[in-house]
Amino acid sequence: MRFVSETCSDGVCEQLFFLNDVPGVLWTPEGAAGTRPLIVMGHGGGQHKKAPDILSLARRFVTECDFAVAAVDVPNHGDRPVDEKYNRIGTENQARVEAGEELAPLVAAFQALVARQTVPEWQTVLDAVQQLDHVGAGPVGYWGVSLGCGLGVPFVAAEPRVRAAVLGLGGALASAADATRITVPVEFLVQWDDERVPRDQSLALFDAFSSADKTLHANPGKHGDIPASELESSLRFFSRHLA
Amino acid sequence: MRFVSETCSDGVCEQLFFLNDVPGVLWTPEGAAGTRPLIVMGHGGGQHKKAPDILSLARRFVTECDFAVAAVDVPNHGDRPVDEKYNRIGTENQARVEAGEELAPLVAAFQALVARQTVPEWQTVLDAVQQLDHVGAGPVGYWGVSLGCGLGVPFVAAEPRVRAAVLGLGGALASAADATRITVPVEFLVQWDDERVPRDQSLALFDAFSSADKTLHANPGKHGDIPASELESSLRFFSRHLA
Repeated sequence: MRFVSETCSDGVCEQLFFLNDVPGVLWTPEGAAGTRPLIVMGHGGGQHKKAPDILSLARRFVTECDFAVAAVDVPNHGDRPVDEKYNRIGTENQARVEAGEELAPLVAAFQALVARQTVPEWQTVLDAVQQLDHVGAGPVGYWGVSLGCGLGVPFVAAEPRVRAAVLGLGGALASAADATRITVPVEFLVQWDDERVPRDQSLALFDAFSSADKTLHANPGKHGDIPASELESSLRFFSRHLA
Repeated sequence: MRFVSETCSDGVCEQLFFLNDVPGVLWTPEGAAGTRPLIVMGHGGGQHKKAPDILSLARRFVTECDFAVAAVDVPNHGDRPVDEKYNRIGTENQARVEAGEELAPLVAAFQALVARQTVPEWQTVLDAVQQLDHVGAGPVGYWGVSLGCGLGVPFVAAEPRVRAAVLGLGGALASAADATRITVPVEFLVQWDDERVPRDQSLALFDAFSSADKTLHANPGKHGDIPASELESSLRFFSRHLA
């Protein structure tokens, strides 16, 4: 784990790092010492580890909950190099959709392929981050919607250290099989007028989680319109389950 | 408005009253003076104004939010006399179901009939309670699930003083028409495995509310199994919208 920068502002220290060429960021409370809960955050498609929504919520986890937060760039996103393989599949999928094929199964297959790379990457990051003195091996949560749900469901299913997850804006076609392996508490976000994930697909994914403690929060609006009250709710959810 | 008893314990004063022969209860903070938000609570079928779930949540509204709370017995419930008309309809409906008729439309028609009595009763209670010095004409919320939703939706639709509502465990067949007239913020509770309200009926009722600010919270479990975290959420919802 190679740290390349550290800056602190308004109570939050931000450390940029590389781990096996994967660029990541760790946020911790200024002056933090000792073990604390850690939230792994997965960014959305076309975004990156410091996208405004991620950064803003990460800072709240740090300042309001005293948690640590880690996020890394997904392949072909952020500070990672162009990946010709994924680009080629993307271009092929676009052509197939233009030729009349359905988009959703193609996206599902693509996310499954990327997850085979990101799940072990994120597990390695978790190993490394939890060895730092100011993070430690405390309880772990996962927060991710949209692509962060598509890649997050297989991660949470595979990773026993994750004790609670906020997921959402994802559908059963891509994620139901892995979701059945999840038994930790889940808060699942649905945008009622999501133009990208059909409503019945969202409800079917919520249905698929094996967690006894799961809750679905649906709000009006399109894919990107999660209301501020849900971010408040994420803070409380993790405070309840990790603190 | 005729008060018949007043008892105070652990910071909550409970006043039992009659208003035009309707028995009711008002909870306020001990030593309360001046105007405050008021929550009207509607109890479930077969229950009453001081059923354990109502009483416990009402006390939390008072102690944690400094609100006033009022609840009255629905006709044929609690301290109200037996109503032969409703009993007769109930018996007839039971016979019709045993003869093969569908239950849901009969319940919907029955609730609509009862609501024609309860909506004006509750409005009269609101008039009277808001004239008390320790309640006043502050913002009003409504909380009710199951029968409290079936009677609550027409009440909230009819009553412009209600500024926010928690509703749930109800379906579109009974309530969608009135729900389209509701535009205030709504938090709507769904039990994912509700044995009494079909899931698609619940989702369709949520869909019907005209409120721009509405949120659906679904949790696993049967009709009566609302988790404690949702009661916490009701407290925050009203704090956000009324305080």
